[in-house]
Amino acid sequence: MLQSTMTIIETTCSIVGRFADERVAESARILIEHLSERAIRPRIALGSELALPPDLQIERVPESQLADGAKLMVAIGGDGTLLYAARLVADKDVPLIGINRGRLGFLTDVLPQDMIASVDAALAGKSEVDERPLLEARLLRPGRGESRILALNDVVVQKVETGRMLDFETWIDGVYVNNHGGDGLVVASATGSTAYALSCGGPIISPHLDVLVVAPICPHTLSDRPIVISANSVVTVTLIERFEARAQVTCDGVVAGDFLPGDRLEIHRSRRKIRLLHPAGFEYYRLLRSKLHWGRGAYDTIE
Amino acid sequence: MLQSTMTIIETTCSIVGRFADERVAESARILIEHLSERAIRPRIALGSELALPPDLQIERVPESQLADGAKLMVAIGGDGTLLYAARLVADKDVPLIGINRGRLGFLTDVLPQDMIASVDAALAGKSEVDERPLLEARLLRPGRGESRILALNDVVVQKVETGRMLDFETWIDGVYVNNHGGDGLVVASATGSTAYALSCGGPIISPHLDVLVVAPICPHTLSDRPIVISANSVVTVTLIERFEARAQVTCDGVVAGDFLPGDRLEIHRSRRKIRLLHPAGFEYYRLLRSKLHWGRGAYDTIE
Amino acid sequence: MLQSTMTIIETTCSIVGRFADERVAESARILIEHLSERAIRPRIALGSELALPPDLQIERVPESQLADGAKLMVAIGGDGTLLYAARLVADKDVPLIGINRGRLGFLTDVLPQDMIASVDAALAGKSEVDERPLLEARLLRPGRGESRILALNDVVVQKVETGRMLDFETWIDGVYVNNHGGDGLVVASATGSTAYALSCGGPIISPHLDVLVVAPICPHTLSDRPIVISANSVVTVTLIERFEARAQVTCDGVVAGDFLPGDRLEIHRSRRKIRLLHPAGFEYYRLLRSKLHWGRGAYDTIE
Amino acid sequence: MLQSTMTIIETTCSIVGRFADERVAESARILIEHLSERAIRPRIALGSELALPPDLQIERVPESQLADGAKLMVAIGGDGTLLYAARLVADKDVPLIGINRGRLGFLTDVLPQDMIASVDAALAGKSEVDERPLLEARLLRPGRGESRILALNDVVVQKVETGRMLDFETWIDGVYVNNHGGDGLVVASATGSTAYALSCGGPIISPHLDVLVVAPICPHTLSDRPIVISANSVVTVTLIERFEARAQVTCDGVVAGDFLPGDRLEIHRSRRKIRLLHPAGFEYYRLLRSKLHWGRGAYDTIE
Repeated sequence: MLQSTMTIIETTCSIVGRFADERVAESARILIEHLSERAIRPRIALGSELALPPDLQIERVPESQLADGAKLMVAIGGDGTLLYAARLVADKDVPLIGINRGRLGFLTDVLPQDMIASVDAALAGKSEVDERPLLEARLLRPGRGESRILALNDVVVQKVETGRMLDFETWIDGVYVNNHGGDGLVVASATGSTAYALSCGGPIISPHLDVLVVAPICPHTLSDRPIVISANSVVTVTLIERFEARAQVTCDGVVAGDFLPGDRLEIHRSRRKIRLLHPAGFEYYRLLRSKLHWGRGAYDTIE
Repeated sequence: MLQSTMTIIETTCSIVGRFADERVAESARILIEHLSERAIRPRIALGSELALPPDLQIERVPESQLADGAKLMVAIGGDGTLLYAARLVADKDVPLIGINRGRLGFLTDVLPQDMIASVDAALAGKSEVDERPLLEARLLRPGRGESRILALNDVVVQKVETGRMLDFETWIDGVYVNNHGGDGLVVASATGSTAYALSCGGPIISPHLDVLVVAPICPHTLSDRPIVISANSVVTVTLIERFEARAQVTCDGVVAGDFLPGDRLEIHRSRRKIRLLHPAGFEYYRLLRSKLHWGRGAYDTIE
Repeated sequence: MLQSTMTIIETTCSIVGRFADERVAESARILIEHLSERAIRPRIALGSELALPPDLQIERVPESQLADGAKLMVAIGGDGTLLYAARLVADKDVPLIGINRGRLGFLTDVLPQDMIASVDAALAGKSEVDERPLLEARLLRPGRGESRILALNDVVVQKVETGRMLDFETWIDGVYVNNHGGDGLVVASATGSTAYALSCGGPIISPHLDVLVVAPICPHTLSDRPIVISANSVVTVTLIERFEARAQVTCDGVVAGDFLPGDRLEIHRSRRKIRLLHPAGFEYYRLLRSKLHWGRGAYDTIE
Repeated sequence: MLQSTMTIIETTCSIVGRFADERVAESARILIEHLSERAIRPRIALGSELALPPDLQIERVPESQLADGAKLMVAIGGDGTLLYAARLVADKDVPLIGINRGRLGFLTDVLPQDMIASVDAALAGKSEVDERPLLEARLLRPGRGESRILALNDVVVQKVETGRMLDFETWIDGVYVNNHGGDGLVVASATGSTAYALSCGGPIISPHLDVLVVAPICPHTLSDRPIVISANSVVTVTLIERFEARAQVTCDGVVAGDFLPGDRLEIHRSRRKIRLLHPAGFEYYRLLRSKLHWGRGAYDTIE
């Protein structure tokens, strides 16, 4: 019996969100109470400003340990919160579930009213598991070091603090592709195709296709269009010297560093994947219809 | 010696083109003379209006037999001519080479001045072989029969003889996707992504990716965007009853039949492929740069 | 007293709609009853299949006389019905009001529940009057006559019964502009900018700007973009001979005739205007937000 | 004679360019020599690094005085240089001519080989004068002052140093238009419609139309499309508080200041105009065709 109790206590469920948003905090409190009643240990990051009733026991650990040994990571908020959570679980094999406090997100597809049932199902191993590969960006900056960053949605080179366009070159698997002028470039996974790349004119990509989309941002040349390539390819980007041009690299919207002529950015699919959990009956095209105002009744049928 | 002569005579090279265009006819004559000198039998379709010197011997066969037993099919003209030739060789395992009389095409990538060398290389088995899968459209029209048509580039449902938009539904692998209003829908192969689908806002797709792009034509709903899906999927389209709506199906630009409410169009990748031959050193991104006015020098670098 | 009665009887309100749609017929019956009670004469077109109670007196006149002497034209249905009504009132100075049976239209902006109040206000001269200029298309077809057609939204040259693109040239005020390849061309008024031209990538144009938008349909050349020009300009379009190309001209979605190489289409703003009536408090940008799913709450604000 | 000499000496021609670019410097030297021979005083900005033969006399004045009393301002380089020159002449009534050292620009439409003839014609008053209105941006930042900046092409609100989208609201003439999520907003003059706004999906606008185009940059909502409005309108933009959102305002590509929630940006047409000089025979649509790779021969006509 003691052993059984210990086992139960060892089940940890980590929770992330911008708790400064009261709607997020409220869902977090409801979830924490529910987990406590079920003798599952809730865990949040040290420094999270989440006001809790004094009787609620909760584990607070440094952000970097948030995923360690957890059975589940729950992201409460929007897709931005889930992208943040994805980085935390990226190399820890902890599944991830997204609870949206507003409208459905592409990644946070559980509505608040379904949170408890979905988390229970997830902890019971009864959710649909949806593996999504990550992108890896290798940023080589001679004299300023090399870094590797993972991203679920996209790696972006973008102009910064300037009204001038960038001038940059792309290669795919070492073969020269194009010299681009414009605001920058998005390299997105299939998962990220419905995020920033879509705003840049990229296509929607079925989420389990093993491809990347390379989409220029506000290109100067109107025929400079998105290209869909194999996810086994490596995309290389370099910046061309140009008056007042300044650029930076972001991964899932987080700044990874500045990007100068002479630097090199290489993007390829990582071997790491995250495991997104969906409620049973999840259907991708239904999500698309909801997010994009598609489908029956979307326009007048009376002439 | 007799045997050797017979063998040589058995090598047949078929030629297609719109010979009414004098530039096409001129290239055809040059090629026919060259083949005759090399004791390779040139063959054109019965009824082709190609004026030839009286001493030139040439085989004329019905269009349906043009590819039979040929070692090579040469398409002289533009991409439209090559698409026509692709249908002729689709189930006959004859390789295909495209000679462009104007600017380079996406498919007809041999310039007139390189025609002889490229055809010689092709006949000698020294070209780069580029296998491209075909699409198969299955058009089910209750009471009006069923037909199957192959296409290299695309299968299109499009409004016809009307200023009214169509209202149609799409399914992917039997799952409902969307209800679209607009001018129609393009389902393109990776090869066809740079043809009509590109004009409809679709992405460029690396030519050997095993995917399809489903692109709405002038959609009424602005968020109705192109979707890239697996080439193992089946796309189904049905038309919704609507005042004055009339539609037709075209495959590679050729009308396959009208399309009415109650009819069903299913599109999937065929197991058949065509073998395109390219000159040695062919590079896809160089072709893109040329066709799309990309690359170095495409815009001002002086500020 | 007799005189008074005659005067009342002389107030005529014409009604158009696709009465085969039961939702349209129902609204028409409600309106006809209301008008009859107010001693205003309802009028519909001869041949309209609208079932009415035997006691309801209604005038039935040929379509061409529907607007003659009417105080108001009521279009019940969608924007297509209002465009049809606009042609009927174009040179008769009868104001026009649009009742939408589904979602709001850009032109039919009265909801069914507001129909009676809006029609009463219109008949009392208390609506907002919104003058919209018409386009005039002059179709010159040597040997096949010349025709002039009015349009509220747009004049369109479009390919027909073919999977081939058109090749055509445009001039503005006699100055050569461009040689286009593609599905055709839309010339839209500011009013029509939110109709077909928007699906072709054109901008939204503030409805009282005195401009036209010239938008290519699925252009072959990706830099062939919509142009906004003065409504005092004349746009001329001619077709270039091309294999299997066939085109037609439509005005507000209605076929005006076929269009061949050698024909000429000239489009300019007509001096005629229609008077659209809106309910008091009508606001254009609110209509845009409603039609285009814009505005507050259109996307997630939780990150 | 003294009088005559004085008159000649008083004719001043100012020259701007990035002289660090040797192609620009070379054209500047040729022009300066030519002007000196004609007894016209060349003038450049103090601090310009332009190496000149010791015998060439040239006036060097502070940048702010460069236009004072000049008969002509010559911009050598690309459109960026001309935009810079436009700011210098904005309130000084000095005409402006643009010499392009690379390909033609939309604003710098004189080729190097035509420079001398064009400048001579300009000084002789024989060029075509093309008046272009300026935009005025009023940036109101409570507690951080108010500024007014002129722009020829565009005023832009744009995200800065962040991978997060902005959330902002627009009003036209005080009427609420939309809540936008995305990278920012371009408000362009007709002149600026072919610059950044075109890369953002805006239309080409005939250069003398009295309109503005308001184009969202990479909008989150796909139906958030460019709007063309009267140049008599005032566009107001405010930023909505959002996690990690940072923005700035640029005018013709030059940073005007940061932009925070609580700040207000108002854009309207200025009463000031600049006078662009074109070589005789200048034709706008020919320039468009050249810049956008349009026109006859732009695509294959062989099928």
